[in-house]
Amino acid sequence: MAMLAWTGQAHGSDLKADVQAWRSAHERQIINHLTELTAIPSVAARPDGLAKMATRLEAELKARGFAARLLPGPAGSPPAVFGSLDTAGAKRTVVFYAHYDGQPVDPATWRTDPFDPVMKAGPGAQAATIDWQGRAPPYDPEWRLFGRAASDDKSSIVAFLAAFDALRAKGQKPAINIKVFWEGEEELNSPGLRSTLETNRDLLKADLWLIGDGPLHQSRSPTLYFGARGNVDVEATVYGPSRPLHSGHYGNWAPNPAMLAVELISELRDPDGRILIPDFSADVRAASPAERAAIDHLPSVEEELREEYSLGRTEGTEGLAASTMRPALNIVGLRAGDGARAIPSQAMVSMDFRLVPDQTPERVKDQVEAYLTSKGWKVIHGDPDAATRRANGKLVKLDWRGGYPALRTPMDAPFAKAVIATVGDAAGRRPAVLPTMGGSVPIYLFSDVLKAPIVVLPIANHDNNQHAPNENARIQNLWDGIVTYAYLMTRLDW
Amino acid sequence: MAMLAWTGQAHGSDLKADVQAWRSAHERQIINHLTELTAIPSVAARPDGLAKMATRLEAELKARGFAARLLPGPAGSPPAVFGSLDTAGAKRTVVFYAHYDGQPVDPATWRTDPFDPVMKAGPGAQAATIDWQGRAPPYDPEWRLFGRAASDDKSSIVAFLAAFDALRAKGQKPAINIKVFWEGEEELNSPGLRSTLETNRDLLKADLWLIGDGPLHQSRSPTLYFGARGNVDVEATVYGPSRPLHSGHYGNWAPNPAMLAVELISELRDPDGRILIPDFSADVRAASPAERAAIDHLPSVEEELREEYSLGRTEGTEGLAASTMRPALNIVGLRAGDGARAIPSQAMVSMDFRLVPDQTPERVKDQVEAYLTSKGWKVIHGDPDAATRRANGKLVKLDWRGGYPALRTPMDAPFAKAVIATVGDAAGRRPAVLPTMGGSVPIYLFSDVLKAPIVVLPIANHDNNQHAPNENARIQNLWDGIVTYAYLMTRLDW
Repeated sequence: MAMLAWTGQAHGSDLKADVQAWRSAHERQIINHLTELTAIPSVAARPDGLAKMATRLEAELKARGFAARLLPGPAGSPPAVFGSLDTAGAKRTVVFYAHYDGQPVDPATWRTDPFDPVMKAGPGAQAATIDWQGRAPPYDPEWRLFGRAASDDKSSIVAFLAAFDALRAKGQKPAINIKVFWEGEEELNSPGLRSTLETNRDLLKADLWLIGDGPLHQSRSPTLYFGARGNVDVEATVYGPSRPLHSGHYGNWAPNPAMLAVELISELRDPDGRILIPDFSADVRAASPAERAAIDHLPSVEEELREEYSLGRTEGTEGLAASTMRPALNIVGLRAGDGARAIPSQAMVSMDFRLVPDQTPERVKDQVEAYLTSKGWKVIHGDPDAATRRANGKLVKLDWRGGYPALRTPMDAPFAKAVIATVGDAAGRRPAVLPTMGGSVPIYLFSDVLKAPIVVLPIANHDNNQHAPNENARIQNLWDGIVTYAYLMTRLDW
Repeated sequence: MAMLAWTGQAHGSDLKADVQAWRSAHERQIINHLTELTAIPSVAARPDGLAKMATRLEAELKARGFAARLLPGPAGSPPAVFGSLDTAGAKRTVVFYAHYDGQPVDPATWRTDPFDPVMKAGPGAQAATIDWQGRAPPYDPEWRLFGRAASDDKSSIVAFLAAFDALRAKGQKPAINIKVFWEGEEELNSPGLRSTLETNRDLLKADLWLIGDGPLHQSRSPTLYFGARGNVDVEATVYGPSRPLHSGHYGNWAPNPAMLAVELISELRDPDGRILIPDFSADVRAASPAERAAIDHLPSVEEELREEYSLGRTEGTEGLAASTMRPALNIVGLRAGDGARAIPSQAMVSMDFRLVPDQTPERVKDQVEAYLTSKGWKVIHGDPDAATRRANGKLVKLDWRGGYPALRTPMDAPFAKAVIATVGDAAGRRPAVLPTMGGSVPIYLFSDVLKAPIVVLPIANHDNNQHAPNENARIQNLWDGIVTYAYLMTRLDW
């Protein structure tokens, strides 16, 4: 067991000043660190990049005195990076979670190479490119480093390590036993995570998991989420003629699969995001009084977001935070035809269900399939043969992928109050505290397998283009994250 | 003026035997001819291919004694190939039309290179590749030559030239003055055609235009169409957030443009192909008694087509031929999202209107835009700025392209009866005679500018994958086309 040999004598009265002074003296090194990690193509399509990233992170932990190693996943899964470092006299153990894999990339849709990080003066397409390595610090905290996973989650990893380095350099002693768990397939819905957790139950024993993922609240307040939505993906394929047909000779007679896609979507979801499956909300847990109060106390950001994203409308009327308490059905891809004047032979609809407690992916699959069957669809799971196409006017192939349930943690437990207070102290202001994030992280598993409480602690800017082209990390968020992690390591107590 | 110096003495009693004998002796040359023309990439994206094709065709006509030349189009349009050859004593002049350009190609969706023609044993993906040049004729007439424009319309051009060669070789004298007009931008809706026709009114004077385009009726009967639908294309873009947003954090709140695409399509068209614009049929001309009778006399092909294309349903109930008497709205492309779990920033719907008499593209544009406006859409024609997006929840950019009206020619005029009889004699059976083809060719212009009657005379197999990947020409159709053209050149009389 690694034990922290802490040499300093400071006791935290000047914690924030100490950490910020260390950061000021190391801006170049910290950004260089984020640049190096972002340049590693640790995405599912690049197993070499995932392997390189895992090895690098293991080495980073070892260099800092952690007992670190790679926890192999089941076949096909990249390893998780684990590290632990005990603090003499600490009564609590906290696991700092992040994921080191990034979303898939389509480089053609990016303005810069997703794995050749570029600093820009701001978020937009017009922002000037900055030769930051040619400049002397201090750097403008509004700069953004563009690259896949720069925010999601490599900023969390870099901020955590920088906070640790700052504490050690300044002799600020942690108050907790620190564990690290960085996984490598979160963007694939973590298919191997349950197995890894079950295999390493003892190793991962802790009093709290802090999940370093997701974006800050759009108010830019320090943010805590006490839950996350679950998810399950499905790609639906609907069928027209067995080969594309001339749209003049056959238009009005051959069935157009784009129309079937329209029909399918219209049956599942209305323009305000309401899911039209009658029993779909049977498993939806109502918001508790504490959760409702938390939502009511959030800073209002909706007008600003409408402006920022040029929205002419929003779906529904309940507001953004309240809307995340409901399941969502997102159309994330729609494809039919290739531009020639032809009736396509199929149409594809990529859908992404976001789940809330107490839904499960299995129940959702059953509900969707039973509902579509009741609407006259023949539901299949493999490619149809000619006879199946011939026999069914409404034929849909459903290809379900991954999926895990949501989790919401009680917001009024002692650990919850301690985390809220510590994050607030770090920032010097009241955090935005939300019952759930809209996005999905597999925190349900930590609760299910390890029975530990979970709080999500993001550091990334809300406008980081997470899961989209041109992902970026705002430098001020990295700086703030360092202070937050330093406070959590040294001040968390319940 | 070129005048046919005909040396032979045959008088047609053995016309079919003569033509077939010549064809049998020249199968290799004829297929080689089609292969060479198909290998020339005469598509809009390849101006070099269009230029090469035009020059080649001009030379082919000159070599056969035609007075031939290229008729330049307006700026940006490829030239039309014109040729004429008078027959001593002929009282009628007939123009043989085809287009030498092909539909765009996306090679990734083809099984073989669209411009490297490949012979296959049949139409399907599993059909064996034939090394036809390594075999001795006679060739199997069920073989298909795969390549872009092999059917649409290079088979018509090759069949016409082969028929001419056969007649000359056998001493069969034409009965008409022959003109040829082969245009090079039909697949772009012929933007320069009106100008070319107006500039060359005298040159193109004729008693009849025969349009060598489109597929045979699905019964494989010899086919005549007395009209064609018109068309106008529009690409609609609808808008979500100004950049893609994480579908977890924003799903249920940020407006999903795929849903707007669904709404747009649902407002325009129902699953049975009915166009929902209330006044859209105001300009639709009713079928005449002769047209209704022609439709009633067509061989029934629908069960066979349902089987061939594995259709589980068809749109509407009136049947294929009757459905082409109505306008159609085809969804030929649908695109949103790139597979990442994000709410896309826009969705695109490519639509293709097929028009019938007496609709005009201009009226259709007005009707569509007025209708969408009445449904709450803000219609724009350029990319919206942030303020426009912000101000309009239902914003649609419409990019209209090309377009021309439909035409239907009376089916009971003397020239009509003569063409039907001659084509029937060539085939030895009753042709399928249709009031209109479902597809579009700009025959309206010939009528409008030149006041000449028009009949469409296709030779391509109905299952040629016209306007789709893996276009192919069935060899028997090429053989039959040669006989048909030979009869028309020597026997047409009214």
